[in-house]
Amino acid sequence: MKVTIIGSGNVAQHLIKACKAASEIEIIQVFARQPKKLTHLVSDDKIVNQYVDLLSVADVYIIAVSDSAISSVAAQLPFSNKLVVHTSGTSHYNVLSCKNKRGVFYPLQTFSKDKVLDFTSIPLCLEAENTSDYEVIKKLAKTLSKKVYQLSSEQRKKIHIAAVFVCNFVNHLYTIGQQICDENNIPFAILQPLINETAQKIIHLNPLEAQTGPAIRNDNVTITEHIEALSNENQKTIYKIITKSIQTIENENTRKKL
Amino acid sequence: MKVTIIGSGNVAQHLIKACKAASEIEIIQVFARQPKKLTHLVSDDKIVNQYVDLLSVADVYIIAVSDSAISSVAAQLPFSNKLVVHTSGTSHYNVLSCKNKRGVFYPLQTFSKDKVLDFTSIPLCLEAENTSDYEVIKKLAKTLSKKVYQLSSEQRKKIHIAAVFVCNFVNHLYTIGQQICDENNIPFAILQPLINETAQKIIHLNPLEAQTGPAIRNDNVTITEHIEALSNENQKTIYKIITKSIQTIENENTRKKL
Repeated sequence: MKVTIIGSGNVAQHLIKACKAASEIEIIQVFARQPKKLTHLVSDDKIVNQYVDLLSVADVYIIAVSDSAISSVAAQLPFSNKLVVHTSGTSHYNVLSCKNKRGVFYPLQTFSKDKVLDFTSIPLCLEAENTSDYEVIKKLAKTLSKKVYQLSSEQRKKIHIAAVFVCNFVNHLYTIGQQICDENNIPFAILQPLINETAQKIIHLNPLEAQTGPAIRNDNVTITEHIEALSNENQKTIYKIITKSIQTIENENTRKKL
Repeated sequence: MKVTIIGSGNVAQHLIKACKAASEIEIIQVFARQPKKLTHLVSDDKIVNQYVDLLSVADVYIIAVSDSAISSVAAQLPFSNKLVVHTSGTSHYNVLSCKNKRGVFYPLQTFSKDKVLDFTSIPLCLEAENTSDYEVIKKLAKTLSKKVYQLSSEQRKKIHIAAVFVCNFVNHLYTIGQQICDENNIPFAILQPLINETAQKIIHLNPLEAQTGPAIRNDNVTITEHIEALSNENQKTIYKIITKSIQTIENENTRKKL
């Protein structure tokens, strides 16, 4: 399977590494406006920085650039009727130029530059305009990962929102945990086992069932003490609204059971 | 080292298992109002359900009951001048009767009944009224865990608040992730690798540095789309306030760097 990857950011680099590691995949070219960003990954003769130099021999072209750039990149591709996919969680495939066959290849993971990832366990969310194209990207995806899902654009948009909650917002709660530790001269590492166990627990337990703490116990003495002890207004507001949300869901479920 | 454990809930049961596994520790007795709750863990002759039956030969008495019951349990112990600790994150040691020597033995972890835990990696937060007593519970703690911390009551109260954010509140964000999946016929398992990676990432990376997503990118188009797409008012409010909090911290740090 012949693949060309366009982009040089975190997603593009992780994709390049994963494709290199898969014996069934041949990287035809990679495209980067600044070629030196990819020289540590790909030999110079395969790196191009002009659209006109892109060859039309790949089976799949993967555009791994920021959401706002996808459309412009797709419009500048110097060929037509080839299979082109983007890697965005939010964009529809129709932001890609219709001169090519279109699809989506969205890896549902948080990527950092220097963090090694096992690509084979990253869920790949696929969509294609045509069934036959879907089969091509599905074959590519199964070569790279054990976890392949077919999601519509609407589903993908929703899973992206869910990802904001369970990744970006969760990380912000970790930041608040660290702030509280720093303010009280407690090493943040003390929270790591709890953070891990909280994430691990829900592999086997529904998060609704896994819920613990003062909110679900309706322990108003502790809740009031905690809110008073917080020094930061945003933290107080977050404490109140999540406590309310936990209790709302709990009440809804109790009503359902009655 | 001779230990008596009072209580039959999750924390008590995990403590009993950990003490049984440690060759240096001898469990003298366990106390449960309903003895049958502990018969799967301890032989019948060691289980008591009357305070008057508690022997005074243990080196440490661990009261692992709910916060609101600690004081009453401690008052009913039929001996004095022994070392008694509770396992609460929020209570001061002075909720224990002063007829005994007092301390705190707080395991910073989320306990579920049927979930096996490696007790040796659970941070134990210790405090004692007297230095010599501290040495006794420190020795006990080091037998059970590799992670032993001395925290004041004030620090323990603060770490408990941090734990609410990084455990209870994080779990609620997982619940919201599951709700969004359920509403859109997407298996919740699709989010598990992201959840794990988000927790793993901050072992080596400061959570402030690990922050990604539309909030920190100031991607207002995506933020507005997400808020409009959410069907639930609590979810909308949580989205807005955490987004604001991420951007506030980012702005504060940018100002500091300038």
